[in-house]
Parts: sequence; C-alpha cells; structure tokens
Amino acid sequence: MTPEELDRTDPEAAIAAAAKRVSNWGRWGGDDVRGTMNFLDSAKRRAAADLVRTGESYSLSQSFDMDGPQKGWRRRTNPIHTMLDTGTDAVAGAQGFPHGIGGADDVIAMPLQCSTQWDGLGHIFDHGVAWNGRPADKVVTSLGDAVTGIETIADVVSGRGVLLDVGRVVGNSLGMGDELPDGFAITENHLQDTIAAQGSSSTVGRGDIVVVRTGRLARARRDGWGDYAGGDSPGLSFTTADWLHRTEIAAIATDTWGFEVRPNEFDVAFQPLHQVAIPHIGLFLGEMWDLDALADACATDGVYDFFLTAAPLPVTGAVGSPVNPIAVR
Amino acid sequence: MTPEELDRTDPEAAIAAAAKRVSNWGRWGGDDVRGTMNFLDSAKRRAAADLVRTGESYSLSQSFDMDGPQKGWRRRTNPIHTMLDTGTDAVAGAQGFPHGIGGADDVIAMPLQCSTQWDGLGHIFDHGVAWNGRPADKVVTSLGDAVTGIETIADVVSGRGVLLDVGRVVGNSLGMGDELPDGFAITENHLQDTIAAQGSSSTVGRGDIVVVRTGRLARARRDGWGDYAGGDSPGLSFTTADWLHRTEIAAIATDTWGFEVRPNEFDVAFQPLHQVAIPHIGLFLGEMWDLDALADACATDGVYDFFLTAAPLPVTGAVGSPVNPIAVR
Amino acid sequence: MTPEELDRTDPEAAIAAAAKRVSNWGRWGGDDVRGTMNFLDSAKRRAAADLVRTGESYSLSQSFDMDGPQKGWRRRTNPIHTMLDTGTDAVAGAQGFPHGIGGADDVIAMPLQCSTQWDGLGHIFDHGVAWNGRPADKVVTSLGDAVTGIETIADVVSGRGVLLDVGRVVGNSLGMGDELPDGFAITENHLQDTIAAQGSSSTVGRGDIVVVRTGRLARARRDGWGDYAGGDSPGLSFTTADWLHRTEIAAIATDTWGFEVRPNEFDVAFQPLHQVAIPHIGLFLGEMWDLDALADACATDGVYDFFLTAAPLPVTGAVGSPVNPIAVR
Amino acid sequence: MTPEELDRTDPEAAIAAAAKRVSNWGRWGGDDVRGTMNFLDSAKRRAAADLVRTGESYSLSQSFDMDGPQKGWRRRTNPIHTMLDTGTDAVAGAQGFPHGIGGADDVIAMPLQCSTQWDGLGHIFDHGVAWNGRPADKVVTSLGDAVTGIETIADVVSGRGVLLDVGRVVGNSLGMGDELPDGFAITENHLQDTIAAQGSSSTVGRGDIVVVRTGRLARARRDGWGDYAGGDSPGLSFTTADWLHRTEIAAIATDTWGFEVRPNEFDVAFQPLHQVAIPHIGLFLGEMWDLDALADACATDGVYDFFLTAAPLPVTGAVGSPVNPIAVR
Repeated sequence: MTPEELDRTDPEAAIAAAAKRVSNWGRWGGDDVRGTMNFLDSAKRRAAADLVRTGESYSLSQSFDMDGPQKGWRRRTNPIHTMLDTGTDAVAGAQGFPHGIGGADDVIAMPLQCSTQWDGLGHIFDHGVAWNGRPADKVVTSLGDAVTGIETIADVVSGRGVLLDVGRVVGNSLGMGDELPDGFAITENHLQDTIAAQGSSSTVGRGDIVVVRTGRLARARRDGWGDYAGGDSPGLSFTTADWLHRTEIAAIATDTWGFEVRPNEFDVAFQPLHQVAIPHIGLFLGEMWDLDALADACATDGVYDFFLTAAPLPVTGAVGSPVNPIAVR
Repeated sequence: MTPEELDRTDPEAAIAAAAKRVSNWGRWGGDDVRGTMNFLDSAKRRAAADLVRTGESYSLSQSFDMDGPQKGWRRRTNPIHTMLDTGTDAVAGAQGFPHGIGGADDVIAMPLQCSTQWDGLGHIFDHGVAWNGRPADKVVTSLGDAVTGIETIADVVSGRGVLLDVGRVVGNSLGMGDELPDGFAITENHLQDTIAAQGSSSTVGRGDIVVVRTGRLARARRDGWGDYAGGDSPGLSFTTADWLHRTEIAAIATDTWGFEVRPNEFDVAFQPLHQVAIPHIGLFLGEMWDLDALADACATDGVYDFFLTAAPLPVTGAVGSPVNPIAVR
Repeated sequence: MTPEELDRTDPEAAIAAAAKRVSNWGRWGGDDVRGTMNFLDSAKRRAAADLVRTGESYSLSQSFDMDGPQKGWRRRTNPIHTMLDTGTDAVAGAQGFPHGIGGADDVIAMPLQCSTQWDGLGHIFDHGVAWNGRPADKVVTSLGDAVTGIETIADVVSGRGVLLDVGRVVGNSLGMGDELPDGFAITENHLQDTIAAQGSSSTVGRGDIVVVRTGRLARARRDGWGDYAGGDSPGLSFTTADWLHRTEIAAIATDTWGFEVRPNEFDVAFQPLHQVAIPHIGLFLGEMWDLDALADACATDGVYDFFLTAAPLPVTGAVGSPVNPIAVR
Repeated sequence: MTPEELDRTDPEAAIAAAAKRVSNWGRWGGDDVRGTMNFLDSAKRRAAADLVRTGESYSLSQSFDMDGPQKGWRRRTNPIHTMLDTGTDAVAGAQGFPHGIGGADDVIAMPLQCSTQWDGLGHIFDHGVAWNGRPADKVVTSLGDAVTGIETIADVVSGRGVLLDVGRVVGNSLGMGDELPDGFAITENHLQDTIAAQGSSSTVGRGDIVVVRTGRLARARRDGWGDYAGGDSPGLSFTTADWLHRTEIAAIATDTWGFEVRPNEFDVAFQPLHQVAIPHIGLFLGEMWDLDALADACATDGVYDFFLTAAPLPVTGAVGSPVNPIAVR
C-alpha cells in the first residue's frame, strides 16, 4: 500500500485493516507484557557486541531542561529542575555540616515524555484496548500502568542499533540536503532505498533497534523549536505498519516529536500509526532522539550499525520514560 | 592507613591529609569537567565489549516509586508519579481524540538522587571548593551546576564493569553469610581479599567502573527499608581514599544509600570520604544500585567483569542523576 | 439514630438509607455546582460582619512544609518547597540583575489536601455518582473536575463561623481534659451539649460555617504526628448526617485528618460519612484546621461566633484546596 | 519628584536616594519580620468590618491553571495540576474501596508567584540586603526564608481595602477608555486625582490595603496574554516610593504582572521600585490581582472601600504566596 492509496476520509477503517494484518496479540502468550522486546534476546545482544570496533560512544539524548520544545500541550511541559542545596549556600556557611563538607542536591519535575523518550506499551490504545487485547481501563488507571509499566523492559533494551539516515539519503536524492521537509511521509520504499544506499551494515531484521534520522531536529536546532512539539514534521507514513511488523524489529526511534508524519495522512486524524504500532504490533517507539552526531560518524566510515543501550528509567507503572541512549561503535 | 589509625576526633585533619595525597586537580587541565571519567576512553570501551559472552543483561536499578527508602531528609522524597491521561479516561470516552485512539501520559517529580543514581562532581564541596579547585559558589547556584553539570558525562559512562562482592566474600569469611553488618568499614584489605578470592576477572584498573556489593540492599529487601536512607550501613572506609585514587578507576558504586560506612569513622562527621573523593579525586560515586541478581550470576560462573552502560539522564546543570545501569555479560 | 443502633456489618445499607433521608439533589436545580454553599448568601455575610468586636484575627491554618503529617498514603505527601533564586545567590553576585537588585523566588509541589484544606464536591462519590446525581466519570477525569471544580466557590466562603469546642466541653465532662480520645464518635447529642454549654453565641443554623475542635491536633502537636494522617482519631459519628443536613450549614471543618471518627463505625469501612455528606448533602468539609488558638480566645470571653473567611485557591478543576482560614472576632 | 526629573542613566543613585528617604528599618525594632503589616492592627480591622453594607463578596483572584500568562522566565511556569484519583477510575471499579465509596484527589506544582500573589519581604534585596537591614544570605537560602517567610503574616492580612481605579479615572480623562496603555507610569498625582474623583470612600491611610486597577488584565483577557508576564505594562512610577511610604499603607496590589511601570523608567533597569519598596519600606506588594468585577461594582454605587481578606498560604519559608483575596462590601 502506498500513501496515495489511503482513503483520507476513513482513518478508522485503515487502522482496523492494518491492525488485522499486523497484530502480534497472543504471539508471546496471553500474559505477555514486553511485545516486540521479545525479539531482542541474549543471542542478539551477544552478536551486537561484535559491532564495537573503536569504542567511540555517542549519546543520542537531547538535553532535559527548560529550553526544550514543549509548550504545554495536554500539560506536557519542559523539565523543571530546582536545587535543594547549592554551592552558594555552602560558601555562605548556611548548611551546618561538620568538617567543612558542603553539598548541592536537586529535584526534577517533568513529563516522562518531555524530551528523548520511549513510549511504553501502555501509552496508546485502540478503541479502549491496549497491547495484547487487554481493556485499557484494566491496564492504566490514575495509579499508573499496572500491567505493562515501563519497568517491565528495564533490563532488555541493549542490542544492535541500526541508523537509517533517510534525511541524508532521500533528502539529498530530492535535492533537499540532509533534511526532509515537514509533512514528508517516509514510506517503505524510502526505508529500503536508504538501506540500499547505506550498504550492508544497514540491513534490518529481528530484534534490531532502528533509529531513523529525518533531519527535523537539525532544523529545529538551527531555526528554533517553533512547533517541533506537535507541529508539522517529516515522519513515518501510516503505510509502513506492515514493514514495522514484518521486519520483527524490537523498537524504532526518530529525531522527531511524534515518530509519524505530521500532518497525518488522513483528513481528520491524530497519530494513526501509533494506534496500530503500539497496541497491535506491541512495538516500542522512541521520540525526540538526537541522531545528528552519530549520523555524521556513520556517514564518514559507512558503517551504520552499532551496540546500542537505551535503558528506560524503571519508573513503576510509567507509560513512557526519559532515556539517554548510548551508541558504541 | 587502617581505620584503627584514624584520629576519630579530627576528621578535618584526616580529610585535609587525604585530599593532599590523592588530589587530581589539574591532571586533565584547569578546564576539566569530567574528572575520573577521563580514564574511560574509547580504547577501554572497545576492550570491554569483548567481555560480552552470552549476551545476558541485568538492570542494576532499583525501581523508582513511592515505595522507595526516602523519608524526606533534606527534602529527599521518593518519586511521585502522576498520570496526565489514563486508560480509564480513554474507555470512558473522556479524551476527545478521533478514530478511536486513546492514550495515557504521565509526569514525575523526584529528587535526582532518590533512587539508583550517580553523584555528579558538583554534588560535594570541601570548604567551599569544588572539583578541580573551583569556588563552589561559581559552580552551583540556584540555577544549577553551570560547570560540571551531569550532562558533561552524557556520552561517557559505558565500559568495563567489575563486581566486587565484598558482602559475599568477606561476609562468609566472617561467618555472616552474604551480607556485611551495618557499621562495617570495608578497607583496602577487604577489597584486595575479594579480588583475590574472585579470581582474575576481578582485577581493577584504569577506567573501570567498580560496583561493590555489601548486601545492605538484600537486607532491606528482606527486612524493610528501615533506615536504609541515611541510617547505619556497611560501606567503604575513609581509608580507601588512596586505593580509589591509585587504581585510576572511572567510577564506583554500591548497593547502599551513602557509599561509605555509616556511622562514619569519626566522632562527629558526615560523609568524609565523599569530601575527598568527589572534589579532590574527581571521582563519580554511584549509590543505591541493585547488584544482587548480577552477583548471583557472577558467583555461578566465576566471571566478575562485564560490559556496563550507566548513562545519566542529561539534566542540564544537575548535580546527580537517576540511572538504570545495564550490565551485559 | 445513635451509633449503638448502627448495624456494623452493613455500611452500604446504612449509607443508602442516610443518603435517602438527607439528599439535597435538585434542591438548587439540576445545574447546581455549589451545594450547601448556596446557604451562604450576601445577607448571611452581611450579618456576620457584625460579629467583629475587637478586630483580633486568627489564622486557622497549619503550616505547609515537609514537617507535616503526611506519610505518602495514596501519594499524599507533605509539601515540597524549593527555591528558584536565593539570597545567598544574590550576595554571591550570581544573579546578573542591574543596579544591585537581587531576588528570591520559589516553587511548591503538593497534594491539594496535604494540610489545612477544603474537600470540594468532586472529592467523593457514592457508587460512581457525584454531587447532584451526576455520573462521576462525567465530572472528574485526569483533566480535573470539569463541573464542580473548587473554583466554583472562589468568591463564596466568607460568613459566620461558629466554633463548637467539643474537645473542651465533652472532654472535660468525661474527665479527659480538653481532648477527645482516638475512636471517640461525636454524636448529635455531643454537638447539642456543646452548643448548650457554650451559650447563645454557639447556635448553629443556615449558612453557618461550623468548626469543630476535637483536640486531636493539640495531641499531635504535643506527642508527634504519629498516625494523625489516616490513623485513629476522634471525629463526627456517621449518625450526625441528619444534623449536618437539617441545620442547613454551608460547611463544617475539624482539627483532624479525616473529619469523621476513626476507626469508622462499621466493621469494614472507609469514611462512610463522607459518602453521604459530599455527594448527597453537597456539603463542604474542611480538614486539618488548627483551632486551638481560636478556641482559647473563645473560652476566655465566652463568645463562639466570628467572621470567617476561608477562600479556596481557585485551582481550575481541583477537587480540594489548601486554605488559610481567617477568623476575625 | 516627577518621572521627568529622574536621571534615566543612573537608577542606582535614584534607588539609593529613595531608600534613604523612605526607609522603615528599625521602625518596629531590629527583630521585626512583618514590615508595613504592622500598620494593620486589630483596631483597623475592627473599623473595616463596618464597611460591609450588603455582604456581596468578590474574589480578586485569577484562576490557577495551565492557561495562565507564564512563559517560563526564570522557571516561572503556569500551575501544573494532576490527579491522583479520578471519577473515571471510580466508575471503572479501579479504586478498591469498600461499600461503593469512590474518590478523586489531586496534586499541584507551581511557582508561588505564578498567578494572583503576594510578594513576601524576602522576595527582593538591595545590594544583598533584605528587609530591616539583614544580609540576604542570612535570610534566604535554598532552605527558604528563615526569617521573613510568608507564614509570619498568616493571620494579619484582613482589613480595609481601597480600590483606586486609575485605569478608569485617568484612562477616561485621557480619552483612553478604562485602560491605561502599556508603559504608562502612574504618578502620585494620578493616584491623588483618582482619590479625588472617586470621593470620600477612597481616602488612603495607615493600615489600608490599596488595590490599583490599571486595566492591563482586562486588556489581556480580551486580546490574549501576549507578554502580560514580564512585558510592557502600565504600573506605578518609581517616583511613588515616597507616597507608598508616607501613606503608611499595609500593602498594595495591582492587576499587572509586575506592579511597577514597564519598561521601567531608567535606561537599563529591572523593577527598581521593588528594590525600594520591599527591602526598605518593608511593603507587601500584590500582583496579578483581578480587580475588574469589583471595580464595576464600586463604579456603580460610588463606594470604593470594603472589607478585604487576603491571607497568604502559610508555606513555611516562602518568599511569596498565591492568594485568593476576598472583598466583602
């Protein structure tokens, strides 16, 4: 299916059809809480360690501070970091500790999805149904996600990462430099073209963590955040649902706010690919990752896979988590 | 020096003397902000990748929730996790999204050192002076740590980890099972004995991240938190400062609240080893790590080193960070 | 009905019967959002102003800080107050403002019912039904109380206050000093006896804000918080529901955590009087008020009514609010 | 002194001269922590009660929610209100309480000066010196204001309020309707003209709480917040410092973000009148009050004074407080 073949007036039918094609419900048993992370096992992790060649490491995280992109949509703010103790207090003699010791300490308040993040399996529902067919109201209450909280994958997310620099490959092929324009829908063809152009280190398969660079963050870094959070953006086409399922990847992340193309590919819609990918495929989505430095390194030596650790903070019952993903090449 | 040789009445002199012996000020230039993380370079990281044998992974993180050990000391509370959107709302039709999509979203408020964590270099001062000799009031104000914020090591903390299971080795040699009692000061001899007992995979050297299991967390897990946060505990002796310096390790973490033995080894004192280790050695300290499952695995096959990624969340200007450390063996 | 006549095994039937007797549903129309605050009109407020005799004022608020009674039950913590800017920073020259101006600024994070507070009408439901018969899921979602948020009474709560010092009157009559013991159920007879003993300034009627002192806070102040928050306490008997309704009071507050007697008067129960008073009577309940200084003043001159302003903070959609009630005599 | 006589190039000298003229240091003893609130005693409060004529009440508070004016300047955000329990959860049967009781509960995180507020005496310093001549670093550390925390006036702020509707009086006299334009400096003459125009109920004297309406909030309500928080605004001229002192008022509040005119009346300046009023006069300033409904009522019957209760939330050590001021006429 291509984006042109979508009936823009009927997202609900398109979602239902896609969900039927790609569902992984029951694949790992009725009790499963890890979805596609089941693809990432010790053997995959073992093999991934061989990808470390020089030992250079890259943080794929944006910073966490008040200068971030959030504008308060549905109470998603930037992180608010305040100090409990400071160096100025220590110097002023205000702390009352013995033998000259002084200290600083701090607190943060933030939405768990305010900056570089994982979406957990409890983040999105389809008609009130969560991953593996569970009623959403039996999964996520005000007390959090009692079933698929992000802590269930605390020890999993370490393995082979593959960068697909669609921004660079497709962007340049279209004469747009290293960045895709807002509203650009990345299709399966674009993904395949990128893999082909990047060469053999870019093959995508079971248990991989795929990171897709669109160039959207590079643009925000240069031009200001603007509507980075929630506004128009390049991103994956709704039609990639089958590829996301067929490849048996463990997770996928982008350098954009919302993973999928925005405006979405239906007349009236909100993140329809999420509605398929999370509750039906059981797929973990990463958003707002910073892939630019890694992409430069990959472009220089032509090697696009690496050992990636992107362990969520195990906040009990969380439906998402901030993360500092580390790629070692 | 042994604990018995310490003059319990004069921590200030002992701290000053130790600081003089172990200072790394200027070692990496006057502008340095990474301290002992400078020991952990790409070559070390490259070599560490060879330690992955089976690909099993272990999270060394405690959970982040209201059931943690914090009791409010200096406003250190347990994490408060609240929901912005829930599954019950989605099912109740209260969200107003199109085509049947529903979602859950969440927020956290927490001290950055409430659970498994890194102490940053701006966390502790000696007589108003921070790492590398900087005046503490020029480093950490109410706006945060403008110099050595935890974000400066966002991409570093991945390399060789070594478990020293002092709790098991020394605890059993003293007939105490796998746990050291509260107030037990771990000396250099205990560390050396543990290395010797565990065998060749336990050697400690430049750039390593050492994790020391005391058994304190296992006890809290069994008996309840009690005074885990701030109360009595086994931990490193003040006299290990020279070993911490001489070994040129990049970082060290324990399964205790406060890294060093408590009560501290002076009559009136508060965390004197911190006062030497952080501002003078420039050493990163990890606290409240959960080492029990990893320790069981190491004891089973007798291999104590592994590939460890413990990337802090890059909260700009933070003097510490929550972390989910991942050990891959 | 007396407490002895309650069937301790069947709270649900007792609640249903009481609800039927005291319901105010529809009394102020189907759209009503103010419940018993409708009794407090301008005429009542006008008359209350005459109660000001000397102009002395009393704050009936406990402090808001980390030293409060909360222990984390259902994530109810004490307030966490942190500074955004400090005097030490100003003196250290760290703020960068012109012409020698410096400043301090601060932030708070707190449950809205952590200290002296009002319960709003969206705080309690009976079998999923809220005040005036509305389905609770149409009233309070994760976005807050869209109907009866505390802001709806922002301008109302100013009028005649009456102190019923049951602790002093009944406590002393029973030889227990000025404090009722934990588990003591205050009945209508106790309320009437107190009114009679205190004299004519203590009559209770339409539109009044009644404040009931039990002595529980005085005990906590002397002996430590202990289980003040959620533990055993004197408080109103379930059987006072009819009095609460018949008197047509606008609101009622106590110096206890939970208003009603604890343990509750059924074998297995949780705050059954709330379940009648809030959704059925539409009554506003105040908790954790500090009535001791006011009670001393009233006991001295024998005048028990006063002008009371207890305006909630108009947090949009809140189901409760911190408050600093001011009594002027 | 008129605004025209100010040397725009030298705010520091102007501030020093004004501070010398208007200082109240020592007026109430060296230990004083209440500043001009000392003017508001029981006798004043007693007399103010006579101003209640009809008993109508007005809340002078803006709402507290995410739709407020804050834009993150120095981490001042709008309030973030989240739910701990909801009606949807209650209806979904997710709460586990007995006998059909259900509940909702909530949390707020907010800067204490995010919406309608009092500035406390620890909020502003002059060259590192706080109210009554205390070194600012001995007053406000990371632990809060240990001396003049807002709790020190918890029981005071109830007395005579006087509305000066400068927006209406001066605005109309200048043909600008009921609103003063941004950048309009309200001088002593404007205040006197307003008092004269409004008549005898508007006299200002010892212990009064003056509320000055500029019309700035009405404009924001109509046109959107824009730069209401921190941007240009009408407000009091720096030259009113002597009037603020001479009148012996207890407090003064406006419907603007920053009380004084913005841009300030010097070439390079930041809130110079604060620097005189708070640390030198010891005056309490209210900001972001909503005076429009009250102003309409006063204009209708020509009576401009009333009984005002504006009790801060007693957050221990706070340098400011949210407040819901209640005017009863």
